[in-house]
Amino acid sequence: MGKWTEIANCIKEAGRVVIMTHTNMDGDAAGSALALCHALRRMGKRCVILLEDDIPGYLKFMHDHSDAEAEPFFVRSMPFDPELALVVDCGDAGRIEKRLDVFESCATKICVDHHVQVDSFADHSVIQPEASATGLLVYELIKELGVPIDKEIAEDLYVAILTDTGCFKYSNTTKECHLVTAELYEYGIEHEKLATLIYDTLELSQIKLEAAIVNWMEVFAGGRAVISYVTQEKLIELGATYDMTNSCIDVLRKIAGVEVCAFLKEHEDGTFKVSLRSKSNADVNLVARALGGGGHVKAAGATLKLPLNEALDATKAEIEKELALR
Amino acid sequence: MGKWTEIANCIKEAGRVVIMTHTNMDGDAAGSALALCHALRRMGKRCVILLEDDIPGYLKFMHDHSDAEAEPFFVRSMPFDPELALVVDCGDAGRIEKRLDVFESCATKICVDHHVQVDSFADHSVIQPEASATGLLVYELIKELGVPIDKEIAEDLYVAILTDTGCFKYSNTTKECHLVTAELYEYGIEHEKLATLIYDTLELSQIKLEAAIVNWMEVFAGGRAVISYVTQEKLIELGATYDMTNSCIDVLRKIAGVEVCAFLKEHEDGTFKVSLRSKSNADVNLVARALGGGGHVKAAGATLKLPLNEALDATKAEIEKELALR
Repeated sequence: MGKWTEIANCIKEAGRVVIMTHTNMDGDAAGSALALCHALRRMGKRCVILLEDDIPGYLKFMHDHSDAEAEPFFVRSMPFDPELALVVDCGDAGRIEKRLDVFESCATKICVDHHVQVDSFADHSVIQPEASATGLLVYELIKELGVPIDKEIAEDLYVAILTDTGCFKYSNTTKECHLVTAELYEYGIEHEKLATLIYDTLELSQIKLEAAIVNWMEVFAGGRAVISYVTQEKLIELGATYDMTNSCIDVLRKIAGVEVCAFLKEHEDGTFKVSLRSKSNADVNLVARALGGGGHVKAAGATLKLPLNEALDATKAEIEKELALR
Repeated sequence: MGKWTEIANCIKEAGRVVIMTHTNMDGDAAGSALALCHALRRMGKRCVILLEDDIPGYLKFMHDHSDAEAEPFFVRSMPFDPELALVVDCGDAGRIEKRLDVFESCATKICVDHHVQVDSFADHSVIQPEASATGLLVYELIKELGVPIDKEIAEDLYVAILTDTGCFKYSNTTKECHLVTAELYEYGIEHEKLATLIYDTLELSQIKLEAAIVNWMEVFAGGRAVISYVTQEKLIELGATYDMTNSCIDVLRKIAGVEVCAFLKEHEDGTFKVSLRSKSNADVNLVARALGGGGHVKAAGATLKLPLNEALDATKAEIEKELALR
């Protein structure tokens, strides 16, 4: 029996299906959920994707998916009683917390994911942490279900693979990602339009925020480190939102020769969240721990209850200590 | 007879080969030339790549290619008399101008390219404008030559495909690009390292320049157009070089809702080069022609002999006229 047989059988038997994915959805979550939703509707099933929070701005275009059917793909409350729950790209019941009642109400519960899973919460699961994107697993499942891939399904799967591999740049990109993408081209995907929407379209306030981060940055430790920040006041001045600050550390990371990057953003309560990244041998987990936080060797963070200048000075001092060891 | 038979036979018979590519080399030119140079050396031939200008900064890492052989890959003058000239990714003799004497001295002249060619200047050519990258043609040629692809050749071909497709985002990206890339993964290419060097590594002065462009930009025509500039004085202040200004228009293009982008850069003689881009229906060729220049519907340019403010005003006025028609 293949790994998909049980799951495919459960899906074939169900008439009403709810799909869920993790809160703070990314492209892999949205693409995997939409591809499956399309496929299940093609099979004649009633199917929606139940959300408990908003779709992020950069993925809003996926909402506009053309479809002749009247029922929307994304819903905030169930328009019917589902028999089957299909959780994709989410290996943690805590990330479907406000939807657990609907999940529990389903006679059958399925999970398809590529995150390392602590507790299995479904009746049937395919969990493959080595898969670059959940979209690749959904691609296999749709093939198993015998639904022909069309342009809409192909574009959803493309967005899933594209975003979880960072436009085929991240280390998790594999031969399989390119082989599946090559097949998706056969269905007429508009890859340039999708990639431009995802990677080359920024709100005016986001572009201004990123420029401001560069204006305010300080390069130190002989060019081996860089630090920058944003305060609540500056965010308001720029018309930027807090979620736009997520990409700021990546702007700093691009600077040639820089080994450690630090970015401080002020929370509404006046504390500063410190994000730290290293490129090769520096251990920013040690820096974060010295600041009362923690994380991994190449990505770590801390929260400082200090005025801006003191928070910057404390972070710089710990980075300099760490770099002095390397 | 396959399209590669003649060319492969010429290469097999030659002992000393010079490879040339266009001036102001890009990733496809460098990757195609290096892949071929590696392959020909594996065949026991003496082979170098003859340059007439510098390798651009962002491709300097390709210079460091490890190789046990003593002879460098890139040379500025020939260390031997070549029998065969192999011109790749260059369909115009004007772009090998200072090397024409060496080219003419070769008994056999070959051209492999994907640009539309006006005059054929080689004895044997494979010209395929529909190929996404010359690297894809070189991949076919290396297969025809029977040289096994190894990690070094694979990485060169990967850089060629990656850069000419804009990291698989441009409209010219095809199914074949992904299929060949999938095969290149089999040879152990370090795709993340290469993609990071090419796309996510910027000189400090380049990052500062791009931020300055955003600081100085003006959004007009109700948010449908944006204009910015850089002067020689500002370039010097930022420690930036003129070739770093090439990417500035792309920074402006990312702004959501903007249809027309204009970027003015001051030449050393005080005139301004105006670069114009449109995203969908506006015709920047008309704007450029009104300013005394020309180009295509979506990409055009002009040169203005005006002081900065007058040049900005003239460009804005023509853009507003064009946008009023759409």
